[in-house]
Amino acid sequence: MNHQAKGLFITLEGGDGSGKTTVMREMEQVLREQGVEFVTTREPGGIEIAEKIRSIILNPQHTAMDARTEALLYAASRRQHLAEKVEPSLDKGITVLCDRFLDSSLAYQGYARGLGMDEVLEINLFATKGRFPDLTFYLDITPEAGLARIASSQSREVNRLDMESLQFHQKVREGYLLIAEMYPERIRIVDASLSKEQVAAEIRRQLSVTLKDFMI
Amino acid sequence: MNHQAKGLFITLEGGDGSGKTTVMREMEQVLREQGVEFVTTREPGGIEIAEKIRSIILNPQHTAMDARTEALLYAASRRQHLAEKVEPSLDKGITVLCDRFLDSSLAYQGYARGLGMDEVLEINLFATKGRFPDLTFYLDITPEAGLARIASSQSREVNRLDMESLQFHQKVREGYLLIAEMYPERIRIVDASLSKEQVAAEIRRQLSVTLKDFMI
Repeated sequence: MNHQAKGLFITLEGGDGSGKTTVMREMEQVLREQGVEFVTTREPGGIEIAEKIRSIILNPQHTAMDARTEALLYAASRRQHLAEKVEPSLDKGITVLCDRFLDSSLAYQGYARGLGMDEVLEINLFATKGRFPDLTFYLDITPEAGLARIASSQSREVNRLDMESLQFHQKVREGYLLIAEMYPERIRIVDASLSKEQVAAEIRRQLSVTLKDFMI
Repeated sequence: MNHQAKGLFITLEGGDGSGKTTVMREMEQVLREQGVEFVTTREPGGIEIAEKIRSIILNPQHTAMDARTEALLYAASRRQHLAEKVEPSLDKGITVLCDRFLDSSLAYQGYARGLGMDEVLEINLFATKGRFPDLTFYLDITPEAGLARIASSQSREVNRLDMESLQFHQKVREGYLLIAEMYPERIRIVDASLSKEQVAAEIRRQLSVTLKDFMI
């Protein structure tokens, strides 16, 4: 595939504490070294409308929020971020690194909350007009190990989603592994229980190969 | 059909200025006369989460709002209102009169904004878990006549949606008429260009027949 005209759309997925931030820095470093113009983002990505939607989702007082409402709000936030930020960048030939995308909804709402992956995929295909990332890294780690990392790092405030049970996070992981089976070409599973250096080396290796393939 | 155990779900649809408020009062009067327990509502219906979602949709500053974002937000607001207010009432055997429901999204977003009625129906079926109203009145009037009524009455502030062009409102009407063809059993078209008294009499007649059918 020739992606000279369009930027590459790369997403990063994984449970909390899987080391996404570190991996994102590594990907940025690889792209810089290879002279690829890129932008790093995450939903809601500073897009005003998407930020407002996200603040409704994450408000800890919204305990009455129905799981379908939540899924639809994520899809709405995704749509606006995609339309205002991701697609304009890709259209200019800029590669986009996005921390979480539709696979998060499939794993969290579709599988772990039991709404059904097919149904959640459907509303997300409406949101993305059928666009999928070109490449997705899933950082695989047990929820026990992931949550332990968050608790020790205290790098951010705990929000409504962190308060879910360990069982929920185990379902999330199961969901991700099923999605990776559904999209073997797009999704690369990375063992995030390895050392930072090992994970970084694996990301570097795989990203370099992909860049070679995509950039002619 | 035996609806003794469940309340009847009745929705009212129509462009702005079609006289929905007057018709709602007439329906309430009929239900009171017949001793039917009911509640009147409209999305977002005082449901906190739904109200917050709706305030994002209607904010006149959100000119960057993508049509798909808007459709997803309406579906999210609908879901929460349905889950927190409409379904609990129906489950208690209380009849629900709702000012606008999913047909509004099909007509406005699906047809008039060109997102496609099938696609908008899909995200709404996700939101409603497949629930349709038992009965829907569509108040049919030309947009010229409807908008003239709003302008003269000044009964409320003009919002972002009012600012749409006349052409848009004509598309909305076309959409509604197509939807009525899709669901001939559920949707009753009422000629809203008639006098208030004539419209009221027609609503009264049709509602009475339906109540007789549904309440055994």
